[in-house]
Amino acid sequence: MFNQLGVIGCGLMGGSFALALKKAGLVKRVVGYSKSPSTTETARRLGVIDVAAESALLAVSGSDIVLLAVPVAATESTLRAVRHLVDPKVLFMDVGSTKCDVVEAARRALGKQHLPAFVPAHPIAGKESAGVQHADAALYQGRQVILTPLAETHAPLVQKATDVWSALGAQVLKMTPENHDQAFAAVSHLPHLLAFAYFQAVASQPAGRDFLSLAGPGFRDFTRIAASDPAVWRDILTANKTEVLLQSRLFRQALDALEAMMQGGDAAALEARIRLISEARSNWHMNVPRGGSRKDS
Amino acid sequence: MFNQLGVIGCGLMGGSFALALKKAGLVKRVVGYSKSPSTTETARRLGVIDVAAESALLAVSGSDIVLLAVPVAATESTLRAVRHLVDPKVLFMDVGSTKCDVVEAARRALGKQHLPAFVPAHPIAGKESAGVQHADAALYQGRQVILTPLAETHAPLVQKATDVWSALGAQVLKMTPENHDQAFAAVSHLPHLLAFAYFQAVASQPAGRDFLSLAGPGFRDFTRIAASDPAVWRDILTANKTEVLLQSRLFRQALDALEAMMQGGDAAALEARIRLISEARSNWHMNVPRGGSRKDS
Repeated sequence: MFNQLGVIGCGLMGGSFALALKKAGLVKRVVGYSKSPSTTETARRLGVIDVAAESALLAVSGSDIVLLAVPVAATESTLRAVRHLVDPKVLFMDVGSTKCDVVEAARRALGKQHLPAFVPAHPIAGKESAGVQHADAALYQGRQVILTPLAETHAPLVQKATDVWSALGAQVLKMTPENHDQAFAAVSHLPHLLAFAYFQAVASQPAGRDFLSLAGPGFRDFTRIAASDPAVWRDILTANKTEVLLQSRLFRQALDALEAMMQGGDAAALEARIRLISEARSNWHMNVPRGGSRKDS
Repeated sequence: MFNQLGVIGCGLMGGSFALALKKAGLVKRVVGYSKSPSTTETARRLGVIDVAAESALLAVSGSDIVLLAVPVAATESTLRAVRHLVDPKVLFMDVGSTKCDVVEAARRALGKQHLPAFVPAHPIAGKESAGVQHADAALYQGRQVILTPLAETHAPLVQKATDVWSALGAQVLKMTPENHDQAFAAVSHLPHLLAFAYFQAVASQPAGRDFLSLAGPGFRDFTRIAASDPAVWRDILTANKTEVLLQSRLFRQALDALEAMMQGGDAAALEARIRLISEARSNWHMNVPRGGSRKDS
């Protein structure tokens, strides 16, 4: 049980964490800060936070748990602003979708003294509809949360982080920042890049509007992530570009191979290849923690 | 009201059409044929068809409405086998996802005499789970159905086709086979090709299994169509390869442009581009006929 949660960045992720902690009875009071005062005010009006803070520092002050939920490029400046309050009495986590850059930013901003009190975290959850008005107490339920603690990270804080996310119905995994960024380049960042590129290619054609009026459920699901938040994805694709571009090359090789079969009229090879893929995808199921099953998984 | 529906190919599409016609009270009896006797038998056992026919010809014989629902590469040989029964007293339609090749196959197989009695149709509906056991009376409800009649096509049959699909809750559109194939290369065939290539690229990496265990809801939706039927997609990608490869080139140009922004570190341009795409995708909604709304659209 915490006395006060400080949320820096009252958007979908921060707002949902506040609602989830409240609903689970794990926090008495939530203080929130956002760069935009109107966002903070909306969060307060919706009951997502109890008190609007006028700075990140004021949101952290007096809190025994803090969630940093800003676009990853803002991590370093935000940590600098609050660094002297980042200490082992506080569970201080972020929610960034990339971890190597967040860890580097934390090293620079916090220095040796404060770094051990920061627990880098990435909850595998989200919606295309960003903003605090879509905050949802159930956002993290049945999801995975990756922690990427460093050698320096204070072990009791890692345990405390594990306990909090588990109490919200999430499954906690630990890995290195490097392994995290490789894996998520493959299963999350590249698909977003492909969906952005694909949607743009269709929509920007002369007949694009007509084409889009004919699109069905397959198109709808394939392009859902193309509606994702621009600032968040600018930062992710920039921070993890080396791994994303590597994954893109592997994707292009697989696409080249399929197109060569189409070009060459090798229908048997094409069918055999698609059959392997189709069966593998049919046998894939999203990892869901025990007891954390969701309607949509 | 029809006396007898003949279904050639008792899979998801043919089976669902049979169930929908029965449920709407539009047909007295359904006779079905599939290349695999066990499929025909399953369809009969499940009550999707009433009578199992031992050949395509026997399924058409005595029917006043026929649905040809086989992989498109089998269109020509099937039409040849039943050609002398394709006449204006029968509403004879297919459900192929490509139309230029189906129309050419029909020209060759049916000749001038029988071609006018064939109405090329493409219902924009489906599921990844193929097979008659997934047949669903509601599959076509709230969906679009494209008819691509030729100059030769008997006009009253086009009207009758429009009436039947409308009675099942679908919205009927007419276009040329060429326009159809261009549009569906863009909004359906290319996304399938990309989803196949992407899933394979991830799964075939040394760490692919670990990566897949971390994938979340975005990945799930982006790759849903990678589980599609191999024979169906072998034929579609082969039949419409020129248009699909053209769309792939446009996609690659859009991907190149986004990657150049990542490479160049042009975060502002990247964000601006993603913002345009994200807003356009947020404003896109799947076309659904009036009164045909569905849970999932």
